[in-house]
Amino acid sequence: MRTRLNVQDVEDAAVGGAVLGTGGGGDPYIGKLMAQRAIEEYGSPEMIPLKDIPDNKYIMIAAGIGAPTVLVEKILRGDEAVTVFKALQNYLGKKAFAVMSAEVGGVNGTIPIAVAARLKIPVVDADCMGRAFPEVQLVIPHLYGVPATPLIIADEKGNSAVLSTINNEWTENIARAISSKMGGMALMALYTMDGKTAKKATLPDMLSFTIKIGKTLRDARARKLDILAELLKVTKGVRLFKGKIVDLDRRTDKGHVRGEVIIQGSDDFGGQTLNMQFQNENLVARSGEKILATVPDLITVLDQDTSFPITTENLKYGLRVTVIGIPCHKKWRTPAGIQLAGPHHFGYDVPYQPIAVNGGARSGARGAAKGTARAGARRVHAS
Amino acid sequence: MRTRLNVQDVEDAAVGGAVLGTGGGGDPYIGKLMAQRAIEEYGSPEMIPLKDIPDNKYIMIAAGIGAPTVLVEKILRGDEAVTVFKALQNYLGKKAFAVMSAEVGGVNGTIPIAVAARLKIPVVDADCMGRAFPEVQLVIPHLYGVPATPLIIADEKGNSAVLSTINNEWTENIARAISSKMGGMALMALYTMDGKTAKKATLPDMLSFTIKIGKTLRDARARKLDILAELLKVTKGVRLFKGKIVDLDRRTDKGHVRGEVIIQGSDDFGGQTLNMQFQNENLVARSGEKILATVPDLITVLDQDTSFPITTENLKYGLRVTVIGIPCHKKWRTPAGIQLAGPHHFGYDVPYQPIAVNGGARSGARGAAKGTARAGARRVHAS
Repeated sequence: MRTRLNVQDVEDAAVGGAVLGTGGGGDPYIGKLMAQRAIEEYGSPEMIPLKDIPDNKYIMIAAGIGAPTVLVEKILRGDEAVTVFKALQNYLGKKAFAVMSAEVGGVNGTIPIAVAARLKIPVVDADCMGRAFPEVQLVIPHLYGVPATPLIIADEKGNSAVLSTINNEWTENIARAISSKMGGMALMALYTMDGKTAKKATLPDMLSFTIKIGKTLRDARARKLDILAELLKVTKGVRLFKGKIVDLDRRTDKGHVRGEVIIQGSDDFGGQTLNMQFQNENLVARSGEKILATVPDLITVLDQDTSFPITTENLKYGLRVTVIGIPCHKKWRTPAGIQLAGPHHFGYDVPYQPIAVNGGARSGARGAAKGTARAGARRVHAS
Repeated sequence: MRTRLNVQDVEDAAVGGAVLGTGGGGDPYIGKLMAQRAIEEYGSPEMIPLKDIPDNKYIMIAAGIGAPTVLVEKILRGDEAVTVFKALQNYLGKKAFAVMSAEVGGVNGTIPIAVAARLKIPVVDADCMGRAFPEVQLVIPHLYGVPATPLIIADEKGNSAVLSTINNEWTENIARAISSKMGGMALMALYTMDGKTAKKATLPDMLSFTIKIGKTLRDARARKLDILAELLKVTKGVRLFKGKIVDLDRRTDKGHVRGEVIIQGSDDFGGQTLNMQFQNENLVARSGEKILATVPDLITVLDQDTSFPITTENLKYGLRVTVIGIPCHKKWRTPAGIQLAGPHHFGYDVPYQPIAVNGGARSGARGAAKGTARAGARRVHAS
């Protein structure tokens, strides 16, 4: 469905993006401000379904790269993403029919909305992950052989680079090094695809799904419903654990936040312990020998009081949390998807087990329980 | 004078480049092989004087960046420098009238000869340093406000980047990070200049001067002359010290070879000690409290037996050496030149003192002594 995105939609997309960010992806706050300011100045951009992109027209992706915490201090004007996006169009001699998000989880969910508003082009209701991931090649288009290059990367000072590489892993290596030199954070335009390619190699309806999550949380709060139950229902998620953070080992290493958190169970999880590893995003959740969830499935930590998501940077000793799991998109659950972004990629010697067939998963909400029981290889969102 | 460069010229240029490389700039061996092979396959390229470049035609520079030791293992085909040079021409939509060297000291002195042979364009008898330096912005064109960008950097695998930056320091930062990711060494095309600019912002006659140094050493050896005396005569150099290496602290740090060597004096330097700091190149030579020489003047360590230059990587405990100083080009001796590439730039809190006015300098050759006494702000080569 074609629709116009307003300031409230952006607010909801930021909240939904925090849920799908699984602890990483960057605080969506700045992306939200950029998008809201752009809408106030340039009007509401149109959000169009993936299927509405003509096969022979091009979409391009606008995204940030680097440590998103730096973004808060660095990017203030808000037009930097537009500059780099325009530069890619000029470089290719092709006009973008629309802009797409690399990942709806985190700050990169809302930056494309800002670009769409300023350039008066549509934003596509789709993304390349359905979550957040910390590397350029960890996207569904990579599984379809789509090159990230030509990629343009730029900082807010006026430095830029156009990359051409032999594969997306090299793009990641070089772009990451450049973003580090550029002060820890930079903006990119990349993954140019024609409509025909985008329709098979990206994930439809992801932006509207993200907005729906935010709206669900907002409505539940306003109507004093059980927020967690509503969240699990809309995401088809399951409650994995409930408890208090009793240990936290977190360090920043080459722009990534890495570490481990230990949560002591409470209520129906009394006497149990959850051990979770993260690298920007939450990656592996274990209770004793039992693996509760791993990437590419989504693991999100919520504040027990508010049911709002907590990033890995904001985990704190003593915090009472609920950990939920959300099945990833079925395209991630293919052998190629698991190989690309499963636990082994991140250095964990554990097998991937889809959340729904994991005996450790317990639902905290009736609707979600039903959804979970059926989930298996189902998509993360209603289609 | 226009001339054609043959395989022997390249051999001489490599030896001369090792003298002017002041311990760094990379082993000219590989650049030499690349150039000689290109000449054998494509014929001798023309070397033209700087003044013969038409004002409205363009020259571009071909150079390697990174740890030159890696080059020996990495670059084998020899056409990589041509690929990146062509890419810059395509990017700019301008044809290069000729190719120039960034620095005659080291491997970057002969790489442009290979490019010239393969593309059948002239190589300019000039360079941007008259020596070797380890950073993109440490060149005479920088003093004249010439941007290094658009710069193309590429590896042998097929990865490349086009940089546009706000200044040459940023270019250095970003290109260095990329070359590091590309495996420690990469090839670049940069510093496009029209003939009018090149005539004021580069150093004429440097390539023929480099060849002349190599030829002088070769002739002296064949004719059993005093090699050191001949070398000092042709370079207008002075003998700074003679002795044996008794201490060596050397480490590789971010692709740079850094350290300090201590030389115990012998013969007329008996009882004295030379202390020399290097960062790829030899930078500061002191004897007690007395500063014998500093960058941007050239400090070169020679094997006592052969009078052949020794790179900082090949310094060895127990080696008997002669240390010579060669006055840098007068454009380096301006306040701006000293600020850009003097000892402070490299972190040494010592003032720059031109070699010739340094009382510690003693000449080992009559011709050189005369040259030195008059040198002051004179050019490094006969003009």
